[in-house]
Amino acid sequence: MTDFDPKMDLVLERYIAVPPQKVWAAWTVPDILMQWFTPAPWKTVACEIDLRPGGKFRTVMQGPDGESNDGTGCYLEVEPDRKLVWTSALGQGYRPNVPQYGVPTFTCLLELTPKGGGTVYRATAVHGTEADAKIHADMGFADGWGAALDQLVALMSR
Amino acid sequence: MTDFDPKMDLVLERYIAVPPQKVWAAWTVPDILMQWFTPAPWKTVACEIDLRPGGKFRTVMQGPDGESNDGTGCYLEVEPDRKLVWTSALGQGYRPNVPQYGVPTFTCLLELTPKGGGTVYRATAVHGTEADAKIHADMGFADGWGAALDQLVALMSR
Repeated sequence: MTDFDPKMDLVLERYIAVPPQKVWAAWTVPDILMQWFTPAPWKTVACEIDLRPGGKFRTVMQGPDGESNDGTGCYLEVEPDRKLVWTSALGQGYRPNVPQYGVPTFTCLLELTPKGGGTVYRATAVHGTEADAKIHADMGFADGWGAALDQLVALMSR
Repeated sequence: MTDFDPKMDLVLERYIAVPPQKVWAAWTVPDILMQWFTPAPWKTVACEIDLRPGGKFRTVMQGPDGESNDGTGCYLEVEPDRKLVWTSALGQGYRPNVPQYGVPTFTCLLELTPKGGGTVYRATAVHGTEADAKIHADMGFADGWGAALDQLVALMSR
C-alpha cells in the first residue's frame, strides 16, 4: 500500500496496447528489461532481479560517452501482472542504501490495470520531500520515463 | 528475507521465558509496547501501529528532562508470532524517510522461535555501512535493546 501525495510524487499514467502479462515480463525478466529500460542513447548494460520482497533489483546504465550509473534497489511488493513496488532507499535484504540510481531516493509503485487488450500503465515515483520530487522532475522524470515506456511498447508490440 | 553481515549488523539474541504469542503482542499492540519499549528513565509516550507491509510504525520517546524523539518507520514483513521486519529508511506507504529515531538508519528484523514454553528472541539491526553500525553500537545498542527486553520480560511475565 502507498499513499499518493501530489506534492511529493511524480506519476506517469498512460493506456498502452500491450497486455499486463507482457508489461510484467518487460519489468521482471532481465534480458527483456535491458532492451527498453533506459532512454536512448543511454543503455542498460547489466541487470539483476531477485523477484521477492527483500530481493535485489540492480541495473547498470551506460551513457554514450561511457559514463555509467550502477543502482541497486529492493523489491517490497510483488503481485504478478498487477503490481510491483521497489525502493532505492533499501538494497538486498532490506539493507539501508546510500543514494542510488543517480536521482533522489524514491520508491517506485508500478500498477497495471487490464483494459481491453491492453493496460492502463501507472508508474509513481514516491519521494521523501517536495524538494526531492522537484529535483527528480527537473532531471526529466516525465520525458525519461515516457521515452522508456515508448521503448517498452515498441519492443513488446513486435 | 535479509542477509546477515557481521560487520554491518548488530544482534541481540536471548532465550526468554515468554511464549512467542506474548512477545508478538508486546511488539504490535501500542498500549503494551509503550510499557516496555524504551529503557527507563526514558518513556514511550505515543505509539502508532499500522501492522501491514507499507504501514506506519511510529513511536515518541521522552527523556527525563523532557527531551523527545519522534520516529516513524515502515513495516515490511508481518508474520504473526514469528517474524516482524520494519525499517527506519521508509515511512508510511514506503515513502523515503529523513533520518529517524535519533540513530543511524536501520532495518529491524525480529525473529521469534518457540522453544519449550518460551522464545528464542533474536533482534537484528541491519545498517547500510560499517560506520553506521559502529555509531549505533557506541550509542549503546546492546545495553539499550537488552534493557528494553528485560522490561518486556518483566511485563509479560506478570
